Amino acid sequence: MSTVGILGGGQLARMLALSGAPLGVRFLVVDSLADACASQVAPLLLADWRDFDALEEFARRIDVATFDFENVPAETAQWLTEHTTVYPNPRALSVAQDRLAEKTLFREVGLATPAFAAIDSLADLERALVEVGYPAVLKTRRLGYDGKGQYRIKSPADVAPAWDALGRVPLILEAFVPFEREVSVIAVRSRDGEFRTYPLTQNWHADGILSMSLAPAPDSDALAPRAFDYARRVAEALDYVGAFALELFVHEGRLLGNEMAPRVHNSGHWTIEGAPASQFENHVRAVLGLPLGDTASLGVNVMFNWIGELPQAAPVLAEPRAHWHDYGKEPRAGRKVGHATLCAFTAEEMRERLVRVARALGREAQAAPVLAAL
Amino acid sequence: MSTVGILGGGQLARMLALSGAPLGVRFLVVDSLADACASQVAPLLLADWRDFDALEEFARRIDVATFDFENVPAETAQWLTEHTTVYPNPRALSVAQDRLAEKTLFREVGLATPAFAAIDSLADLERALVEVGYPAVLKTRRLGYDGKGQYRIKSPADVAPAWDALGRVPLILEAFVPFEREVSVIAVRSRDGEFRTYPLTQNWHADGILSMSLAPAPDSDALAPRAFDYARRVAEALDYVGAFALELFVHEGRLLGNEMAPRVHNSGHWTIEGAPASQFENHVRAVLGLPLGDTASLGVNVMFNWIGELPQAAPVLAEPRAHWHDYGKEPRAGRKVGHATLCAFTAEEMRERLVRVARALGREAQAAPVLAAL
Repeated sequence: MSTVGILGGGQLARMLALSGAPLGVRFLVVDSLADACASQVAPLLLADWRDFDALEEFARRIDVATFDFENVPAETAQWLTEHTTVYPNPRALSVAQDRLAEKTLFREVGLATPAFAAIDSLADLERALVEVGYPAVLKTRRLGYDGKGQYRIKSPADVAPAWDALGRVPLILEAFVPFEREVSVIAVRSRDGEFRTYPLTQNWHADGILSMSLAPAPDSDALAPRAFDYARRVAEALDYVGAFALELFVHEGRLLGNEMAPRVHNSGHWTIEGAPASQFENHVRAVLGLPLGDTASLGVNVMFNWIGELPQAAPVLAEPRAHWHDYGKEPRAGRKVGHATLCAFTAEEMRERLVRVARALGREAQAAPVLAAL
Repeated sequence: MSTVGILGGGQLARMLALSGAPLGVRFLVVDSLADACASQVAPLLLADWRDFDALEEFARRIDVATFDFENVPAETAQWLTEHTTVYPNPRALSVAQDRLAEKTLFREVGLATPAFAAIDSLADLERALVEVGYPAVLKTRRLGYDGKGQYRIKSPADVAPAWDALGRVPLILEAFVPFEREVSVIAVRSRDGEFRTYPLTQNWHADGILSMSLAPAPDSDALAPRAFDYARRVAEALDYVGAFALELFVHEGRLLGNEMAPRVHNSGHWTIEGAPASQFENHVRAVLGLPLGDTASLGVNVMFNWIGELPQAAPVLAEPRAHWHDYGKEPRAGRKVGHATLCAFTAEEMRERLVRVARALGREAQAAPVLAAL
C-alpha cells in the first residue's frame, strides 16, 4: 500500500485523494490551514511548506510527493527531491511558475505564443509596447493564476498605472490576442514516458476565472491532434510525470500557447464522471508508476464552476447524469467552492439537459456560451 | 454541511464515504477496530457499539446515523433512534437480521420463498424434514452471512450432525432449491417514499461468498419488473429508507425470495462506475433526504470479487473501462479485500474484455459462468 504525499490541501488534493483511494492508495496532505478541505478525506499534516522539520516527517511517512498548487517554494521542491521521490520534477514546476520561462519553452518546442517581452523597468515596458502593440497585457511572471497579477494596457494612458500596480516584481508583457476560442489539453505522462490525452476541452472564463468547460470541444477534429502534439512536446521537454493542462488560444485557425498548469486542472474536472479514469486517478497512477488509465470520453460533458458560493444543489441532484461537487469550503468571493458536471450521450441530449439545469439554477447567462457552441 | 454517522467501518462504510464526499457530506465511522478500512477516508470513533457513552458522542457529532452491517445489536439501533435520526429504521434491521421474520415478510407481500420451518429442537427438525424434504438447508436464524451458519442436509444421516453443529441457537430449515439463476435487486427508497431500482443483477457465489456479478442480468425483460415490484413491496412494508438488496432465486420461471440485505450490497458494487449515481451515493442521498440519483446502467457491467487476497492489479489497470478497488485491508482467508468492475458498451465488447482480463489474472474459472451467461 503506497502513500502519496500532497503539498497543498485544497480541492485538487481532495479530489486526488478521493480518486486514488479506490486503488488502495493512502494520502497525507501538508497544509498550513487546519480546515484545508482535503483534510475531510485524508490525514493532514498541519505545517508551513517551509517548515523543514515537518517536511522531514512528511517525507518519512510517504512514498512519493506531489502538489495541488504550482506555487510551491523552489527550495521546498528541491529539498523534497533530496528526501523522497517527487513528481512532477522541480524543473517542470519552476518553468510553469514563471510565465517567461513557460512561453520561452513553448517557442522552443515549436508552439507559437502571443508576442511577449520580459519587463524589468518602465523603460523596458515602453520599448516593448512599440513591438507588441496595443492592447497588451502586463502580467507578473510569478504567482499569477485565475487572472490575478494582470493589468490590461489598452492605450499609452494605461502604461504608468500598470507599472504602478505591478512594477515591484519581474513582469512579462504579452500581446492581447482576440482569440475565437480557448481550449485546454488535459494530459498525463507516466514515469516511463507513456503519454495520454483526454479529448480537447473548450473553456470559458469570467473575471479571469474558469466558468464553464465543454468536452470534447466541438469541431476539433483538425485542432485536437495538433494540440495533443504540442502537449506531448512540452511534457517531454520537461520530463514531466503526472497530469497537467496546456491552455491554448485558437486564433485564425492557429494554436497559441497561453499557459501550462503542472498539476490536475479545473478544466479537467469533467473527467471524474466523463472518462473511465479521471485526471485525478491518472495523476495518482502516474506518480506511483502504475499503468495509465483510459482517457476516452464517455459522451459529451459540460462543467459549471461554482465561484464564491454554491447555487442550490437540488436541480443538479435531480437531473439524470448530473454530478454535484461541493468541496466542503466556506463561501468567499472569488473562491472556487464546487462544480457540477453534466454528462450526455449526444450533443442534442446535452442541450436539453443544459437548458433545464441552467434555468433551474438561474444560471442561463453562465451556460449561454456553451449552448451556443454545442 | 451534513455529517452522516456510520456504524461499522468496513469497505461498505469506506465506499459510502468516498461516494458521499463529492456531495459535501462529512462522515464519522464508529468501529471497535483501530484499523477499520473506512478510517483511511473518514474520521473514526474507536468504540464498541454497546459503549453508550461513545454512542452519545457519536449522536452529538452527526445529523443522521446509518449502518454498514446489518447485525447491529437491536438495543444499539433502538438507543440511536432515541438520540438521533436513523435510517434504515430498527424494524427493517431486525426483520433482515432474522431469516424467519424475513421469509415471513416475503410471503406477506406476495413473494414466494423456498419451503421453510422454524426449528427450536431436534424433534422440530425431524418433523420439518418430512414436510420440506431432502435436500434441505439448516440455517441459524440470526448472524448468518456469506454462507456462515449453514448446514446442508442431504439425507437422514446428516440430521444429527447438523443439529450438533448449529443446534444451540434458533434455526430455520429451508428447502434446497435447484435454482437456475440467482439475481438481486439493488434498490433505494427515499425519505418521502420515492423508489428506484438499478437494472437487475445476476450473481454467482463460490463457497457461499459472492464471486461474480453481471448487470443488467441477461434475458431479464420479463423477470426484472416482477423482481422490482417485490422489492418495492418489501421496502414499503418496512417503511425502508436507503439502499438495500433483495436476493432472489429464479426457478422454473418463478422468483423465490432468498434474503434481504438492509444496506448497500456487494452485488451492487458495479454501480460505482456502471451507473450515474452509485448505490453508495444514493444511500447517502436517501438518508439525508436529498433527491435520488440516476440508476440507469451505462452499458454492460461485470464485477469480480476478490476474496482472501488481491490478484495483480496491473492487468485491470491497463484495460480500458476497467476499475480497480482495493479496500486497504490485510489479506485473510475468506475476507473480502477488493473487487474489480469491467464496463463495456455491448455484450460483445464485454466478452472480449472479460476473456482478456480473466486470462491475464489467471481467473478463467471465476469468470467462466459469466461468459457463458453473456
